[in-house]
Amino acid sequence: MATRKLKVGLLGSGRIGRVHAANLAAHPGVDFAWVADPMLDSALEVAALYGASATAEASMVLADPDLDALLICSPTPTHVGLIIEAANRGIAVLCEKPVDLDLDRARACREATAGSTAPIMMAFNRRFDPSFREVREAVEAGEIGALENLAIISRDPAPAPLGYLEVSGGIFKDQSIHDLDMARSFLPDIVEVTAHGSNLFDEGITVLGDYDSVQMTLRAASGALVSITNSRHCSSGYDQRLEAFGPKGMLEVANATDTLVRRSSAAGTSTAGAFQPFFLERYARAYAAELDYFVSCILEGRTPVPGLEDGIAALELAQAALVSARERRTVSLAEIRDGVAVAS
Amino acid sequence: MATRKLKVGLLGSGRIGRVHAANLAAHPGVDFAWVADPMLDSALEVAALYGASATAEASMVLADPDLDALLICSPTPTHVGLIIEAANRGIAVLCEKPVDLDLDRARACREATAGSTAPIMMAFNRRFDPSFREVREAVEAGEIGALENLAIISRDPAPAPLGYLEVSGGIFKDQSIHDLDMARSFLPDIVEVTAHGSNLFDEGITVLGDYDSVQMTLRAASGALVSITNSRHCSSGYDQRLEAFGPKGMLEVANATDTLVRRSSAAGTSTAGAFQPFFLERYARAYAAELDYFVSCILEGRTPVPGLEDGIAALELAQAALVSARERRTVSLAEIRDGVAVAS
Amino acid sequence: MATRKLKVGLLGSGRIGRVHAANLAAHPGVDFAWVADPMLDSALEVAALYGASATAEASMVLADPDLDALLICSPTPTHVGLIIEAANRGIAVLCEKPVDLDLDRARACREATAGSTAPIMMAFNRRFDPSFREVREAVEAGEIGALENLAIISRDPAPAPLGYLEVSGGIFKDQSIHDLDMARSFLPDIVEVTAHGSNLFDEGITVLGDYDSVQMTLRAASGALVSITNSRHCSSGYDQRLEAFGPKGMLEVANATDTLVRRSSAAGTSTAGAFQPFFLERYARAYAAELDYFVSCILEGRTPVPGLEDGIAALELAQAALVSARERRTVSLAEIRDGVAVAS
Amino acid sequence: MATRKLKVGLLGSGRIGRVHAANLAAHPGVDFAWVADPMLDSALEVAALYGASATAEASMVLADPDLDALLICSPTPTHVGLIIEAANRGIAVLCEKPVDLDLDRARACREATAGSTAPIMMAFNRRFDPSFREVREAVEAGEIGALENLAIISRDPAPAPLGYLEVSGGIFKDQSIHDLDMARSFLPDIVEVTAHGSNLFDEGITVLGDYDSVQMTLRAASGALVSITNSRHCSSGYDQRLEAFGPKGMLEVANATDTLVRRSSAAGTSTAGAFQPFFLERYARAYAAELDYFVSCILEGRTPVPGLEDGIAALELAQAALVSARERRTVSLAEIRDGVAVAS
Repeated sequence: MATRKLKVGLLGSGRIGRVHAANLAAHPGVDFAWVADPMLDSALEVAALYGASATAEASMVLADPDLDALLICSPTPTHVGLIIEAANRGIAVLCEKPVDLDLDRARACREATAGSTAPIMMAFNRRFDPSFREVREAVEAGEIGALENLAIISRDPAPAPLGYLEVSGGIFKDQSIHDLDMARSFLPDIVEVTAHGSNLFDEGITVLGDYDSVQMTLRAASGALVSITNSRHCSSGYDQRLEAFGPKGMLEVANATDTLVRRSSAAGTSTAGAFQPFFLERYARAYAAELDYFVSCILEGRTPVPGLEDGIAALELAQAALVSARERRTVSLAEIRDGVAVAS
Repeated sequence: MATRKLKVGLLGSGRIGRVHAANLAAHPGVDFAWVADPMLDSALEVAALYGASATAEASMVLADPDLDALLICSPTPTHVGLIIEAANRGIAVLCEKPVDLDLDRARACREATAGSTAPIMMAFNRRFDPSFREVREAVEAGEIGALENLAIISRDPAPAPLGYLEVSGGIFKDQSIHDLDMARSFLPDIVEVTAHGSNLFDEGITVLGDYDSVQMTLRAASGALVSITNSRHCSSGYDQRLEAFGPKGMLEVANATDTLVRRSSAAGTSTAGAFQPFFLERYARAYAAELDYFVSCILEGRTPVPGLEDGIAALELAQAALVSARERRTVSLAEIRDGVAVAS
Repeated sequence: MATRKLKVGLLGSGRIGRVHAANLAAHPGVDFAWVADPMLDSALEVAALYGASATAEASMVLADPDLDALLICSPTPTHVGLIIEAANRGIAVLCEKPVDLDLDRARACREATAGSTAPIMMAFNRRFDPSFREVREAVEAGEIGALENLAIISRDPAPAPLGYLEVSGGIFKDQSIHDLDMARSFLPDIVEVTAHGSNLFDEGITVLGDYDSVQMTLRAASGALVSITNSRHCSSGYDQRLEAFGPKGMLEVANATDTLVRRSSAAGTSTAGAFQPFFLERYARAYAAELDYFVSCILEGRTPVPGLEDGIAALELAQAALVSARERRTVSLAEIRDGVAVAS
Repeated sequence: MATRKLKVGLLGSGRIGRVHAANLAAHPGVDFAWVADPMLDSALEVAALYGASATAEASMVLADPDLDALLICSPTPTHVGLIIEAANRGIAVLCEKPVDLDLDRARACREATAGSTAPIMMAFNRRFDPSFREVREAVEAGEIGALENLAIISRDPAPAPLGYLEVSGGIFKDQSIHDLDMARSFLPDIVEVTAHGSNLFDEGITVLGDYDSVQMTLRAASGALVSITNSRHCSSGYDQRLEAFGPKGMLEVANATDTLVRRSSAAGTSTAGAFQPFFLERYARAYAAELDYFVSCILEGRTPVPGLEDGIAALELAQAALVSARERRTVSLAEIRDGVAVAS
């Protein structure tokens, strides 16, 4: 079958941009044409690896009349502008989370792109992890009955540099947003959020007015309860677990390790290896599957999920969590949607 | 060594009373003298098994001038009166939880026994489970550093009969109280409680105005956060897990099964057996260890822990959880202690 | 039901005798009447614990006209004589393995007791372990189809003292005999044995002319192959595993640990505790179940299994293994039964 | 660094050839130039995927004066001739196992290539599996002390077609040879082999005079014993395990599954997914690592291991196993090397 290849540009050649670059280059349906980064050397380096063209200007990529799709991996403040411009040119978008740190700007993006039919997909990569997807599909298929409880544990191996954390939007919008989206992928209709933050180990984070550890409870319209536990550190590696509980059973996603070796000695038995170090390793397959899904949506004319609406909804949950933690009370999503609850 | 045997009476010969009866009979330091139960046939049956004397009247047991210790396994409303009477006679008490469903009555019990030196111990059996204790001791020894997060999952295999649930005081004071005490055994200084209840599967429980599923978050004075998840049912058996997380590691208590067999076939691999059915099996060793500890405290003149004060503190947490769930807000323990927060 | 209690005597108050003593005392159907041991102080100590009578003379116990059953835990050379005497007096026997170290003497025991209807049971305790039994029953029920492969791993934590090993009959008749009997409990019709012995870590055992490590392959009449691996030491504890493989699946018995705690840190994840230390812990339930089965066989008039014939069959396998290891060849059971193959 | 790319040809475009083709194409140090296969359509298909040239004639590839290396994935009877021709032309060789089914021909290959300095590597892919390698390196580093016991379990998911099995050389030279080489990678100096074969489930294999199930014991010069268990089928998937035991601990390689999901319900708990289906999945990383190692050996002028000598040694073990199974006796490697023991 001689399907045409999609001409794709990549904006941003940092850590996550490079993950996408390798997947773009390896994808048989993609013509990986452009890499743009204000740090031109970085763009040139990535472009050289994969035979793409490099530029410091995103506008050059957007101006390419043959461009089919754009991957947005540039800093968060640039997302909204780039999404709008691409959408209005009819270019499909796969944008890293979050849409924006500001809910109003994210909503404005929705309005500004309402007239476009170009697909807009948010890169919540974990939805494409085979194990999380297996559990979600099993729940949807009724294997455990109606979902009653969902527990998500997500701990980074170590805090990002303070320079990054300072502009990250805080733990809820930066780290928890993945888990909030995961919760929504199981229970789209979350009606209230209660969040608790603590400062337990990182003074730099305290100085930023952010939390290093949080615990959230979400309630779905069905009454199902979701527990989300986050920490900015974990000595055993990248701790990424999920458990779905229902009347007929439970489904657990265990941590991944890089080895099948188990050690036993006088010091203990059946010792497994460390959890995989971080998201590059843990979600390598998810990133590839996410891109493949995005490409197939474009080729087959399907609307990709999660879309811009899901990006906004996850941001609303993160905003609700922030208000809840600050004001020490349960926050209903209606408040957030109506603009009643606001936290700085 | 010719230590004298403690003369012990048992009040209540129901399910839990019989667990204690067997342990009393097997304990080399105990002279198991009395079983009292208003249902005399039941008392007679247990007494016959172990060579004790039976009576329908608790007062007969309390009147025995040689009695050293009393195990109170009678219905909750009788606890306070029996504790007071025993304490004032100088008889050591091991009392099943809770002290009382009413916090004021529990506090009155404290005042009424303040003058007695008789040891009063609350039977929070899980503290004596070898695995939970191993984790607590490892945390205290600093193995994982300062505790940052504690997660407790506790699900019964199936709801108790409605007749029992109706007088149980509700899920927080009946089921969660064990987990709240467990949380206190790691983090004695809990300062606030947020609780969420749902009605997901049992209409009878809804009619009672109670919840069948709850999720709680506790904050300790240190900032450490505790997550507690309870359900009145679980298809895989009695789900009893705990995980303690700190900067240097994590310690998990896995579920217990009755078999070492693992099955593999085309349908899946390494399948373990069901979790142990319920508390009688899961905490059999804990009940024996609890009794042994109680006996040794008496013989060695030590004050048993958990004591009456711990029973009241767990009840305060349960009360805070109830207020929180009803009023959809975080409740500080200070409110409960000061009598500000009250829920029916 | 007022069943009469069986009057039981115990010969031998060493380590294994004391396991049986505690179980005899705890068994509701047993009147634990006698403990005999040439070391009278030891017999007195055990007797005092459980309210039995002590004697230095086994003959005194055998002479008790009311004695229903005898547990033989005395040294191996005494087994045959005691079995014969008890059987001829109509006293039921539960005898520790092996029947004897000499196959001819074991066979003579069979002839000498042929006329007696008194039940004779060999104490192959592992048959009564709940997990091994669960696997055997699942295999018999056809869960995995016709058994094709059975793998048994059995390693002691550390070698017994040389003084014991010297009179033990060697690793095949002392240690492996349990695994050979286990193999027979799955595949009664073993037709040939190939054994390999090595001296890898214990010079004292080398001096005795014995092996510290052995590997055996058994072939059943069905063609099914059995692998048995033994070692006299294991740094992680008592290593006791079994795996049954068939066309429809496999069933594994994992090692037992004393704790449900799993540890994770930078040094590794999900670390389980040590295997249980040794047979007293690992087979505690098996010993109790074995005694209970023995008692119920007597009361219900059933022939206990494993019986004397099974004891002789296991010894034949051990003898075949010894010949095989010495002569570096496969030995058929027919040779052993016909007296062709003999190793010193 | 501007290293030159190695020009590489691939002989054979069947299942295993295609694994190597994909890895050749993805390797940055390789110019994947040729695919040869008598079935020209297959060669053309693979060549088109990766931009290589296709031919039906291996001789065309060998005649390329710029060729640096050859991957031999053609049928076993062609191996020796191709190795000799390549080696004599100075072309590096990576050859699939076995060298040949006939030991004399394999030895003749060694003589015929003795004068060549071209690297010859045998593709025992499992040596390059990260988990097996981790265990081997840990053993070499002394983590468990001197190796005392090695247990290898290797079961295919289902028998290959009879047409293949008929020319496979039998289970020992076709399937077990991987495990025999694995044993040599831990214990190079194997001195004797005892093998047992059975026909338990596949009549077609019986008709071929081959076994469907085998059990082997190997003895190393050190006295260490190796157990190898093979079956041509396994209902749970591709069963690939290894356990190394020493005085200071044991190291186990567990089976791989494609999912991190664990299921619990009334039917059982913690159920893992099927073992990975077969070698393409289980050893995907090993194939890539093997190629990478081969390339780096050529570029750095190192002698690759396993080499032709290892291929012959593994074949000797397989031959010894065959003689042992047929003649029902232990076979020493010396017999095989001296040509004393011969089985058809």
